[in-house]
Amino acid sequence: MISNIETDRWIMMGLIGFAVGLLGFLLHQLIERISALKWSTTKEFLDDGKVAVGWMFCSAYSMAFAVFAAAVVVLWRPSAGGSGLPEVTGFLNGTQVKKIFSIKTLVAKFVSCTAAIGCGMPIGPEGPMIHMGAIMGAGLSQGTSDVFKFKLPFFERFRNPEDRRNFISAGVAAGVSAAFGAPVGGLLFCMEEVSSFWSNTLSWQIFFCCIIATSTSDLFNSSFQEFRQIGTFGGFQTSRYILFNVYDAVDINILMFIPSAILGVLGGLLGSAFTILNLKMTRFRKRRLASISSPGLVKVIRFVEPALVMLVMSSFSVFLPMAFKCIPYTCLPSDASTVSDFCVNDTTNKYDSQLREEEETFHTCEEGTHYMNGTTLFSNGTYNELALLLFSSKDEAMKNLYLRNSHRMFNYGPLFVGLIIYFFMVIWAAGTSVAAGILVPMLVIGALYGRILGLMIVDIFGVHLDQSYWSWMDPGAFALIGSASFFSGVARLAPAITSIMMELTNDLKVLLPVMTAVVVAKWVGDYLTHPFFHALLELKCIPFLNQQPNVRINKKNVQLELFTASDIMAFPVVTVNLIEHVPTLAQKLLDYTHNGFPVLKELPNGNCIFHGLITRSELLVMLENKDVLKPGPVEPLDDSNLDIAPIGYDAMLRGPVEREQMQEKFLQQFVDSNSHFRNHYVDLTAYLNMSAMSVPCKFSLHRAYTLISALGLRHLTVVDESNQVKGIITRKDLMGFHMVETLGNIMETRPYFK
Amino acid sequence: MISNIETDRWIMMGLIGFAVGLLGFLLHQLIERISALKWSTTKEFLDDGKVAVGWMFCSAYSMAFAVFAAAVVVLWRPSAGGSGLPEVTGFLNGTQVKKIFSIKTLVAKFVSCTAAIGCGMPIGPEGPMIHMGAIMGAGLSQGTSDVFKFKLPFFERFRNPEDRRNFISAGVAAGVSAAFGAPVGGLLFCMEEVSSFWSNTLSWQIFFCCIIATSTSDLFNSSFQEFRQIGTFGGFQTSRYILFNVYDAVDINILMFIPSAILGVLGGLLGSAFTILNLKMTRFRKRRLASISSPGLVKVIRFVEPALVMLVMSSFSVFLPMAFKCIPYTCLPSDASTVSDFCVNDTTNKYDSQLREEEETFHTCEEGTHYMNGTTLFSNGTYNELALLLFSSKDEAMKNLYLRNSHRMFNYGPLFVGLIIYFFMVIWAAGTSVAAGILVPMLVIGALYGRILGLMIVDIFGVHLDQSYWSWMDPGAFALIGSASFFSGVARLAPAITSIMMELTNDLKVLLPVMTAVVVAKWVGDYLTHPFFHALLELKCIPFLNQQPNVRINKKNVQLELFTASDIMAFPVVTVNLIEHVPTLAQKLLDYTHNGFPVLKELPNGNCIFHGLITRSELLVMLENKDVLKPGPVEPLDDSNLDIAPIGYDAMLRGPVEREQMQEKFLQQFVDSNSHFRNHYVDLTAYLNMSAMSVPCKFSLHRAYTLISALGLRHLTVVDESNQVKGIITRKDLMGFHMVETLGNIMETRPYFK
Repeated sequence: MISNIETDRWIMMGLIGFAVGLLGFLLHQLIERISALKWSTTKEFLDDGKVAVGWMFCSAYSMAFAVFAAAVVVLWRPSAGGSGLPEVTGFLNGTQVKKIFSIKTLVAKFVSCTAAIGCGMPIGPEGPMIHMGAIMGAGLSQGTSDVFKFKLPFFERFRNPEDRRNFISAGVAAGVSAAFGAPVGGLLFCMEEVSSFWSNTLSWQIFFCCIIATSTSDLFNSSFQEFRQIGTFGGFQTSRYILFNVYDAVDINILMFIPSAILGVLGGLLGSAFTILNLKMTRFRKRRLASISSPGLVKVIRFVEPALVMLVMSSFSVFLPMAFKCIPYTCLPSDASTVSDFCVNDTTNKYDSQLREEEETFHTCEEGTHYMNGTTLFSNGTYNELALLLFSSKDEAMKNLYLRNSHRMFNYGPLFVGLIIYFFMVIWAAGTSVAAGILVPMLVIGALYGRILGLMIVDIFGVHLDQSYWSWMDPGAFALIGSASFFSGVARLAPAITSIMMELTNDLKVLLPVMTAVVVAKWVGDYLTHPFFHALLELKCIPFLNQQPNVRINKKNVQLELFTASDIMAFPVVTVNLIEHVPTLAQKLLDYTHNGFPVLKELPNGNCIFHGLITRSELLVMLENKDVLKPGPVEPLDDSNLDIAPIGYDAMLRGPVEREQMQEKFLQQFVDSNSHFRNHYVDLTAYLNMSAMSVPCKFSLHRAYTLISALGLRHLTVVDESNQVKGIITRKDLMGFHMVETLGNIMETRPYFK
Repeated sequence: MISNIETDRWIMMGLIGFAVGLLGFLLHQLIERISALKWSTTKEFLDDGKVAVGWMFCSAYSMAFAVFAAAVVVLWRPSAGGSGLPEVTGFLNGTQVKKIFSIKTLVAKFVSCTAAIGCGMPIGPEGPMIHMGAIMGAGLSQGTSDVFKFKLPFFERFRNPEDRRNFISAGVAAGVSAAFGAPVGGLLFCMEEVSSFWSNTLSWQIFFCCIIATSTSDLFNSSFQEFRQIGTFGGFQTSRYILFNVYDAVDINILMFIPSAILGVLGGLLGSAFTILNLKMTRFRKRRLASISSPGLVKVIRFVEPALVMLVMSSFSVFLPMAFKCIPYTCLPSDASTVSDFCVNDTTNKYDSQLREEEETFHTCEEGTHYMNGTTLFSNGTYNELALLLFSSKDEAMKNLYLRNSHRMFNYGPLFVGLIIYFFMVIWAAGTSVAAGILVPMLVIGALYGRILGLMIVDIFGVHLDQSYWSWMDPGAFALIGSASFFSGVARLAPAITSIMMELTNDLKVLLPVMTAVVVAKWVGDYLTHPFFHALLELKCIPFLNQQPNVRINKKNVQLELFTASDIMAFPVVTVNLIEHVPTLAQKLLDYTHNGFPVLKELPNGNCIFHGLITRSELLVMLENKDVLKPGPVEPLDDSNLDIAPIGYDAMLRGPVEREQMQEKFLQQFVDSNSHFRNHYVDLTAYLNMSAMSVPCKFSLHRAYTLISALGLRHLTVVDESNQVKGIITRKDLMGFHMVETLGNIMETRPYFK
């Protein structure tokens, strides 16, 4: 054995994967169930000619679920709203966000997300799956719950911040894996977007976690549909474990890169527009809600909004398709010159016509006299294009959009109408109070404009089928590339998006055009605005530290190498002494809310030098343990013999017993002039962190930034030549706006920059 | 514009991608040409019944190329030998390896690799492609060449170590992308295995570089075969851009994870055996060659060895298949119970029978009377299984092994013979002096035992074809999973191997079993031995610093948190003063070969504190610039006004003018007692690195390790409480064997550990 084999860690990773996979399965099946009931019932009404009743049912059903989804969040668990992705990203970057890893949040998220997506809101389950995965990772690995007040006696060694963070990362990756059936995509998504700290060891463990998560959800989803068993348990069915499986993929061509680049440009433009509009919408909503004085009214509005979204969506779904004619199927036999209409039982394009027969006759197209083989459907061989896009779940719409050899399945009118509706409805819906992600809706939007471009190419150059030099001109392939481009224009992820797209569609042949669209969309998008999720972080005031500093003043990148640590540091610093006077310490804790305090040690020459760092929580624990407070004068402990410290590591890690609201009162007892502790001292030697980093004043700001972000430091003490504390740099000092302001001022005064 | 758009950097990335892609294309075509000539000519002899002549031609042809491939390396450019992967990995980790990025090495590598693989040595082109890609990255981005003595006036801003390293990483990724047609795999391989430093920005740029590299090589390879045009330029042909394309992929089943895990175990066991044997072989060769006194004889032996490999391989290829009967084709119609023999023109299994007709009649199987449609081949409907594996290029063998619905195409005998031959011949060949990688041979070995397991399953449970619950029992699918397992057992990479396998085969359906095999192979392998490439690094004495420390004493992981920086630091330290006496400085440079020196500054209180770090190269440049040497006493420069430094940044970066051999003489002039400079001083203020890190003696060793590896530091100075230098930690102090020794000694003396 050449390295440490941590069986328990792998088991925990497997457990997290299994739990998240199961969760993904439940979510998927419930959504399918709710969705199927809505569409099939509405369709029955329409088939009977009862359009008004159908619309009423459709709207009422959807609105009920939407209100329920919002109510769970608004009334019970506000932390379950939105996608949760920014909060988890912020947490993994080193920011504490409250209540996001509680079981209650998990339940609320699950219920809200299921109801909202099931009823057909234009949102996706992936953001919530990520958040739920993170909660699973945190909950299972820590084995404790504040809600249920228990603590399991297993896996105790994982109860430390680093392991917790790693298991949360695994949960995030498993969430994406289970939602998309994309294990590699999940791993890469977590690495690229969510995690700030990564190692090869962690990569392997998360890899394993993703295998288990995807296997679990794929296996169960292959065996059940709407909780009813389909097929024999154990077999993975293509249509169930590859979400938008592409049949008959086409070979690519060098010319295909031109439309792919155009799609990339569109993705960048529309993605930026999407980001900007969504943020404007969110800010507008926030402002308006803040201006309302009654908290009850605010809550009502936050219920009503999703219901309103669903009223609009339902009306669109029911009525808009009626504005479009039912058009006949057009099959494309191998001889492209003769496009035959009304080919209901044509076998040249088997998958295509079958799928349409079974799924698309529903809307208002007349029932016909043709009898379809194998089923009991009657059809007049026509279908409604817009109903394919709006009058069904998004997954169905996606499959149709990606369909190959179906060049004229959708015409411009329905595609444009669908694009406009989805684009704006997603912007609106994604900011409402329900638990919602935007990944699948992004794919729909991209697929719509991708197919429009594909159709234009077909209109110019004609229909070319299998195996010809021009067969790459397939609108279904461009729909796929369009999805990737919009995804990239909004989220700006490279290998993650590529992997997810491949794993979603099983079409590796279009890999290079997809990658081209992704990179072009990133270029265009970067020119226009920030990535969506980073903009959300800013909007939510989460102090996220990028890997690399990016400070722009007067439209120019600022070279942080030209500045020093002392230019940005905060000072004066609140410090504590190695042997600290108890009332003074309590007063400091009362006066300042800082989380970390540099500890000073007095040298024989009288200099007080930087000796380490101690956190607020550690100081509070010490004050709570009265036996470490001793009447002075106190001799410093010999620090070569620290195992005798009276407070154990566990107790330190657990933090203070007093709740936050009570701390002020608790501290006050030490400060009172008649306090029992007025002459007591506390020796910090055994508890301070002597491996806290410090840098000299002249240290380059760029390197200081790298140090803090690469090592995930919360405090970096700045010292002078003889090691005396001059200042301190924290995460907040390195936020973009703060750096721009401080460095801008310096640039104006220092002659070098003129 | 919200961030800096570095157009020139993207252009350079594109250029590197294009150049590497083109190189990949040339390599591929040349290898195809050399290989085709060998097999077709030998086959003609065999067809005419001239077995002895055929064998002689085959051997002579192969041996000539093998000797040539070795000669280029041995006589001209030793740095071009082997795969080059450890050297590049070591360089990107921060170790300087000489001559590896020269144009001569590129040419030698290309020629040697082409000749060796073309003639059929059991090696692969991927390692050399990685090295050549790295050279391209270094050469193009720096625009300078020592060989041709030129320096281009473009892209001057990339001439710094960080950018150079990034472009080299891009070249590496492009090399894998072009060799495998795997852009995402290339990116991930570079990230996981080769690069030690990575950022999201770099990831995007390399992503782009990989798109260009893959597109270029795929496009040209689709349009040319052996440099003759095939098809219309511009179209990507599946069989040419997806190396081992899988047709008719099968749906997976939960039961499939059992054999996949077994393959994982086999991969771990055989992969470790492979690693250990290969290293033993290499060490044995080294020892034997070192014991030979005549350098001429050593060179001859290093020529002859590859020729010997080829003699054995050729004899195997020609004679061994004769020991096996030619067996009739067995087609598998959809009704599995009736397996029909002699189905030459059977269309039930179109791809399968066509491929065999065209490619497999060659060996000694008799010409028949059946006439095949579409070609002019006559066939008696039989083929030789072992000839399929040995008497053709490895790529052909791979395609046959991965073939689906070809359950009984290979029987146990030929598979076992092939496995044994490849396993040992690859171990032998991979250590010879030619430029060679082992990635494709690894895939062959894995595919062979994968197919054996698949065949066993078929023998136990019978043949099951398309769409049935048991159709997952396809030996071709298990061959693919076997390849992944062996690759993982040897190299231990997670997402990289998975992506490469998917991009090589276009079979996403087996993704989960592949991942399972990969992770199980890693577990088993980790229990037995180090990853192959890391073992090679150690063998080549490249001081590679892992991301995470892994020190094992008495079979237990050592907690580095329990040690301090002062436990491992080297002392006393050779330091220089901020105002240094010139002869003293020269003497220090003569006496010590250190690369970096802490600079001391005297405080008013007499303490000499740590002020920064200066490199040997910088000190030499200063001594070469006589105008910075001034007769004493010298006042220190005001360090708020450093722009007036007489030596520019460029000159410092370029390093000393004197060649290494001359430096001693150069330094001697300062030391001579009658030197003109005996009273001169030099002020280092303007040139030292004030952002050099220092840590206190009590700083945790674990954090010190993380600091050095995460930031890529070469020196970490250890200081005491009043900032005086106590020691220094360099990369070498953190190497495994050194840590084990030092910490082992400490553990014996310190009571805590008893």
